Amino acid sequence: MRKAQETVFEIIEGADENGSRWSRYFDILIVSLISISILQVILESFQHIHALYEWQFRILEVFIVIVFTIEYLLRLWAARLKYPERGPITSRLFFIFSAYGLIDLFAILPFYLPFFLAVDLRFIRILRVMRLLRVFKLNRYLKAFRIVGAVIMDKRSELSITIFVTFLLLLLSSTVMYYLEGDVQPDSFPNIISTFWWAIATLTTVGYGDVVPVTGWGRFISGIIALLGIGLVALPTGIISAAFVEALEEEKGKKKKARPKLPEDGYRYCPYCGRPMEEH
Amino acid sequence: MRKAQETVFEIIEGADENGSRWSRYFDILIVSLISISILQVILESFQHIHALYEWQFRILEVFIVIVFTIEYLLRLWAARLKYPERGPITSRLFFIFSAYGLIDLFAILPFYLPFFLAVDLRFIRILRVMRLLRVFKLNRYLKAFRIVGAVIMDKRSELSITIFVTFLLLLLSSTVMYYLEGDVQPDSFPNIISTFWWAIATLTTVGYGDVVPVTGWGRFISGIIALLGIGLVALPTGIISAAFVEALEEEKGKKKKARPKLPEDGYRYCPYCGRPMEEH
Amino acid sequence: MRKAQETVFEIIEGADENGSRWSRYFDILIVSLISISILQVILESFQHIHALYEWQFRILEVFIVIVFTIEYLLRLWAARLKYPERGPITSRLFFIFSAYGLIDLFAILPFYLPFFLAVDLRFIRILRVMRLLRVFKLNRYLKAFRIVGAVIMDKRSELSITIFVTFLLLLLSSTVMYYLEGDVQPDSFPNIISTFWWAIATLTTVGYGDVVPVTGWGRFISGIIALLGIGLVALPTGIISAAFVEALEEEKGKKKKARPKLPEDGYRYCPYCGRPMEEH
Amino acid sequence: MRKAQETVFEIIEGADENGSRWSRYFDILIVSLISISILQVILESFQHIHALYEWQFRILEVFIVIVFTIEYLLRLWAARLKYPERGPITSRLFFIFSAYGLIDLFAILPFYLPFFLAVDLRFIRILRVMRLLRVFKLNRYLKAFRIVGAVIMDKRSELSITIFVTFLLLLLSSTVMYYLEGDVQPDSFPNIISTFWWAIATLTTVGYGDVVPVTGWGRFISGIIALLGIGLVALPTGIISAAFVEALEEEKGKKKKARPKLPEDGYRYCPYCGRPMEEH
Repeated sequence: MRKAQETVFEIIEGADENGSRWSRYFDILIVSLISISILQVILESFQHIHALYEWQFRILEVFIVIVFTIEYLLRLWAARLKYPERGPITSRLFFIFSAYGLIDLFAILPFYLPFFLAVDLRFIRILRVMRLLRVFKLNRYLKAFRIVGAVIMDKRSELSITIFVTFLLLLLSSTVMYYLEGDVQPDSFPNIISTFWWAIATLTTVGYGDVVPVTGWGRFISGIIALLGIGLVALPTGIISAAFVEALEEEKGKKKKARPKLPEDGYRYCPYCGRPMEEH
Repeated sequence: MRKAQETVFEIIEGADENGSRWSRYFDILIVSLISISILQVILESFQHIHALYEWQFRILEVFIVIVFTIEYLLRLWAARLKYPERGPITSRLFFIFSAYGLIDLFAILPFYLPFFLAVDLRFIRILRVMRLLRVFKLNRYLKAFRIVGAVIMDKRSELSITIFVTFLLLLLSSTVMYYLEGDVQPDSFPNIISTFWWAIATLTTVGYGDVVPVTGWGRFISGIIALLGIGLVALPTGIISAAFVEALEEEKGKKKKARPKLPEDGYRYCPYCGRPMEEH
Repeated sequence: MRKAQETVFEIIEGADENGSRWSRYFDILIVSLISISILQVILESFQHIHALYEWQFRILEVFIVIVFTIEYLLRLWAARLKYPERGPITSRLFFIFSAYGLIDLFAILPFYLPFFLAVDLRFIRILRVMRLLRVFKLNRYLKAFRIVGAVIMDKRSELSITIFVTFLLLLLSSTVMYYLEGDVQPDSFPNIISTFWWAIATLTTVGYGDVVPVTGWGRFISGIIALLGIGLVALPTGIISAAFVEALEEEKGKKKKARPKLPEDGYRYCPYCGRPMEEH
Repeated sequence: MRKAQETVFEIIEGADENGSRWSRYFDILIVSLISISILQVILESFQHIHALYEWQFRILEVFIVIVFTIEYLLRLWAARLKYPERGPITSRLFFIFSAYGLIDLFAILPFYLPFFLAVDLRFIRILRVMRLLRVFKLNRYLKAFRIVGAVIMDKRSELSITIFVTFLLLLLSSTVMYYLEGDVQPDSFPNIISTFWWAIATLTTVGYGDVVPVTGWGRFISGIIALLGIGLVALPTGIISAAFVEALEEEKGKKKKARPKLPEDGYRYCPYCGRPMEEH
């Protein structure tokens, strides 16, 4: 059984350049099924296509979910080989709660849930697109991904402030706006929560134009918020720019080939005349 | 009395990790009241909820204001312990005009003002959300807050220029636009001040679309302003980015542990004449 | 006469901290007249105010122009003292074509031109706001102004590319869009020049929404242009950010107090043992 | 014939500062024809002008295409002198598939294609504007072009991530939005592909306002996407800013004239043991 486990593990995980032929076939199958599934979600949203091919779509979905379920169970079974230092149960729990494990679970869950709960989660199927992350393995972009991720993580407290200030601005401006425009346009500004819609559209400079102040003071506040919206763009951009500059410099610092540096605690001998420094 | 003052001070200020149990209870009470108060402001904006629970809301508001007023008076009373180097009156004035003191005052003022003035300042109650700043103390984000604040303060004259140029652009483009579109669309561009509404929406790239030029020249100017709007985003972003880069480098410079460099306090021998430096 | 010229020069130019009392009075007069003039332009745009106070506005305008004209002639007369190294005529030409001289001319020209040409240039009066630049002298913000200006000038060729690419994108997308939407919406996309209106609104992400594609391909192209619009913001912002970083570093480099640097062409004597380097 | 080829090559390629008089005349001719052609494309889009001067436009177009075709054939003929190290055929293929060669081909192709295919490619004529790139040679902006291009190329993997994440966001938000708004506004959100129109307009903060969510959850998701749109601007801007900072520093590093540093090629005496480095 250990042997079978190893074979399965090699097929489902070893799709790298040194993967076997079967492993490559397996990957092609999974990528095809993901692509077909995404296409199906998109096509089903066209009412007439959905009506025309309803039962074909149903069969396709059942087939895809069966394959993905088998794949998920195989991965669960072979998880011990992925985390060899763990026990038989902890290794499986590690897989289930790993990022990829959860994505795999979300890819099949929307199918099974309606049997137990009366919810329509079909649109979660679109998350299957994230399964491509695993199959493509993205070896090429991984470093770039890591840099971008590290930059955002490194500055998370500064970026949190931006989010906090944004939320504060949204709350304050929505309240003020509700009191200024609520009486004149009760349909557009019926309460503070609904006024958030205007506040976000203004602060992010989206400006749909479906909810627009008409009073003088309302327009004044709106103008202030729109101008502050520029600061809202400038702040995180500045933070992220500086973080990228820092990341690039650190990387460059590491790259510099290790040439004999100045000894940190002073020379013992003069590098010019060769005599002990004490004699100098 | 000094003893009571100290106990009160410890309860209302010492909510840090080393705070007493009563201090923690006090903080939980204040945070709860702030949250309830914010929720009340939002809920009151829903007309039917307001109509349904009008007197309950009124009682709640009176209760919250009483607690906040007592808290404010206690803080005022214990201010001497916060500014121990000041006298009994200056320490209280220091508290009243400190940032937190003013926020605390604004949190209760909207309730008392209507007794003296015929104004409806209820919406100022939303500023109570800023009281959370004190209670959470935000130890964790404080450094990030300080960096962001320092960056903005450090570049305030460069940023002022952006604001000055923005105002100039708004004034010039509004005047030009009024002369171009005022005759064709007297409702949308009735005067220069009203045309500011169009100018801000264009320069900040919000673009609601409720006021839009229709003449050829009007659209030409509008296009120029929209393109300049990109510069308006680029300029402060560039300034802030550079300031963050600078701030990060300075911080890094400080971190570097002081390793023995080439003698900063002068060489032992002059590299030019070869004589001991003392002889110079 | 030389004496009178000097007195006049001191009054109109010497408004700095060491200026005389009359010079300060003169400045207050000019700032007041500029402010009144700007206010007048804005107020005149309100139709009912204009109708009500028509001849008062006219008298005020004549008075302001007379004062400004006298001031201009005095500055012209005293120009020799501003450019002492120049001759009597070249110094005056220098003043006329200096930035401030042109602003001063534009401030009075709109009044005199209608006597010769049948044009309404009254809105140019708003440019008088730029005269404030001189009077406030802006000593405080001058350095920041110079940095911002130097940064933009330094990167003008890189920024020109952004403008060139922007123009190319506007031309190409307008042409394509005209062929895609022109038949379906002949009112919104009547010709390529009019389609520029849509192109600018999309590329700058203003998005008024008065001209919007409705065909599938039109929306596809519009989406591409909108996404490219983000690049259009990112490019100049990146250029300006880097330029500010550079400017700040150069400035910091200059500030570093001149400590004895490593001699550039090698030591003559070993700084440790004091013997000539040749002996090493 | 070799002589003729050289003369032709000098005329069509040698428009630099050291170009002959004929070469300059040739350049003026080509620039004029390009400008006229662009103008013609724009003017033809005005229906009444097109109707009025239909056959004049046709003749002009035939004339321009003839000149451009002759020019293209001459360049093809003289390609051997441009790539002297290549053979007679490979040098021509090199020209045909060079960036400039393709632009030149696209400038005449739209005229000939309709004889073979029933397609209207007249709008491709606008690409002739790109021919100006060659004629202006842009020696002045070339360095800036190269820097901008190098910066974008250098960070292409980081920028690809932004594009990938953007696409993922568009797909996910469109799917969610279709399920939220599809039933309420079947005209605005008929299927997932059409919902992309809303998603792009929101994520890029264009916000035309022709397609706007009306349900509470739809507006909530829309707000989230709009706020994420700010991140979408901040990320590429940050990447590009850092790349420009890096490019400027590298350039500055090169400029610094090589001054004798602490010996990079090893000390003469080991600073630790004091023996000559050769003995190590």
